[in-house]
Amino acid sequence: MNNRLRSVVIGFFALTLVLLVTVSAAAPLPSWRDGPAKQSVIRFVDRISNAGSPAYVPEPERIAVFDNDGTLWSEKPLYFQFIYALDEVRRMAPQHPEWQHEAPFASILKGQAVAALAADPKALLEVVAATHAGMTTDAFNASVQRWLAQARHPRTKRAYTGMVYQPMLELLGYLRDNGFKTFIVSGGGIDFLRAFSWKSYGIPPEQVVGSSLKEKYAHRDGRPVLIKLPELNFIDDGPGKPVGIHQYIGRRPIFAAGNSDGDLQMLEWTTAGAGPRLGLIVHHTDAQREWAYDRHSKIGHLDKALNQAKSQGWTVVDMEKDWTVIYPPAKH
Amino acid sequence: MNNRLRSVVIGFFALTLVLLVTVSAAAPLPSWRDGPAKQSVIRFVDRISNAGSPAYVPEPERIAVFDNDGTLWSEKPLYFQFIYALDEVRRMAPQHPEWQHEAPFASILKGQAVAALAADPKALLEVVAATHAGMTTDAFNASVQRWLAQARHPRTKRAYTGMVYQPMLELLGYLRDNGFKTFIVSGGGIDFLRAFSWKSYGIPPEQVVGSSLKEKYAHRDGRPVLIKLPELNFIDDGPGKPVGIHQYIGRRPIFAAGNSDGDLQMLEWTTAGAGPRLGLIVHHTDAQREWAYDRHSKIGHLDKALNQAKSQGWTVVDMEKDWTVIYPPAKH
Repeated sequence: MNNRLRSVVIGFFALTLVLLVTVSAAAPLPSWRDGPAKQSVIRFVDRISNAGSPAYVPEPERIAVFDNDGTLWSEKPLYFQFIYALDEVRRMAPQHPEWQHEAPFASILKGQAVAALAADPKALLEVVAATHAGMTTDAFNASVQRWLAQARHPRTKRAYTGMVYQPMLELLGYLRDNGFKTFIVSGGGIDFLRAFSWKSYGIPPEQVVGSSLKEKYAHRDGRPVLIKLPELNFIDDGPGKPVGIHQYIGRRPIFAAGNSDGDLQMLEWTTAGAGPRLGLIVHHTDAQREWAYDRHSKIGHLDKALNQAKSQGWTVVDMEKDWTVIYPPAKH
Repeated sequence: MNNRLRSVVIGFFALTLVLLVTVSAAAPLPSWRDGPAKQSVIRFVDRISNAGSPAYVPEPERIAVFDNDGTLWSEKPLYFQFIYALDEVRRMAPQHPEWQHEAPFASILKGQAVAALAADPKALLEVVAATHAGMTTDAFNASVQRWLAQARHPRTKRAYTGMVYQPMLELLGYLRDNGFKTFIVSGGGIDFLRAFSWKSYGIPPEQVVGSSLKEKYAHRDGRPVLIKLPELNFIDDGPGKPVGIHQYIGRRPIFAAGNSDGDLQMLEWTTAGAGPRLGLIVHHTDAQREWAYDRHSKIGHLDKALNQAKSQGWTVVDMEKDWTVIYPPAKH
């Protein structure tokens, strides 16, 4: 009995030791090459986690915000939500014979989406209204889920949710492991994002900030529903991002990641706060494995924010050099 | 050595046993008398926590929403935020000599606040604009903090944050101990609420939904700021509450607590979802220890929601009978 007890206790300690060693041996951010970007992230997290240091940040204040398009997943040849809207126009066309003759729908149905939307600034809103409004929030969510399950990207042939960035998934997890609450702060539609944010990023719906339409409370067949209206509520882009952060989160983040000038004010607002802050820009430099673009691209336009990165001390991630992989392993 | 080991192991098991017994002996909701209200809450939490049962709700979906005025703290003789606004008008009056002659400020400065605001539906918005806008979000937060630290309620002589309901603090804690994420969903101003929600309720700013003004991103003295504008952004009341819940939280709660007809749609929306749901109404029945009012009160008007409570199966809390205390022990 005594010997058995001793074995149990010794076995228990040995197991604990093995577990401790395993955990500390799992180095963070495995898809990030050792270099200045990875080092600045790890140094920042170490600094704000060190309870003895004046740079220490208590857990509830560890708020990290991430842009989505071009920061957490790809955005070429068009924002994926926009591809969804065009697919929806095609799917809904049989119920809308008038679209064959009406701008911008007629051009979209002829395969001239970009021309149709460039011709008229109101065209995009019309497409959004036709495909994102006039239905319940539940119906919209189901529609996005259905599309995400079936649609494939024209170049990679992957599901769109298969085009999230593996290194950014690791970054989200690393921050959460260190007591951060992670949020999406995107120019994309809040309800579109919520259809996959939990499954793809581990970010729950209540931690998603995005652009939105107005909504109305109503009853249908005696049951309460929320109807999405064809009227803009909020544009969460550019100077709208700090506003969205304040309205939805109510405190200033200490970490922000973006990839375009639409993230400039979010990076500014985050890093202008007192104490240690990290601003991070994902720079699309990898024409081989993803896309390479910045100052001359309409989608993901990165110019002013890249200029400011140096003076502001923001970390610029060079996708080609800093990341060993882009996407998670493909599912078979 | 063997004997020492054995003692250590036995000691450890004994300690564990003592801890287990202590924890389970700390009965929940100590300020709630045993009765149908307390029982329905405990039964609900037990049902949704039972991993084997079809009623089981996974932790991320355990969303609980609470109205604030009249549900988490008192609201008489006026909503406390409104008392703040009137105090601010008086404090700011020396810098606004024109207010001596301008409605509604002149009447407020003469002590006729209610008459001034009843005379003109736009008056309240003017008072809010004068006292809640034209400043940075940081300055507003500091102003509310200062007021909360100094102001005392005319009848109880307590700080306003001393007039939160002790039984509701226990309910918030009990739900959180059982894996719930607790949110405020109030008609009050979101930035006003955030000035005390963490300290008073343990609810962080990102879990507060409320009415809001529009805000603008700007630079002052070379530093980015958010300016509160004198323009309504969102009214989180009545049918606005389910809209606010969807916009901010993005999923339907399984638990909602309110006290007035302004909470009717929130209760409806919450309890119309599939699976077990709990709707709870705090009924102000205690003229002695708090206030007694419902159908004939302008503030905290409770009429339709009280009628619907029975048919909908909502739990009605009788403050006089169900609560052994109203407020936390006063600080000396």
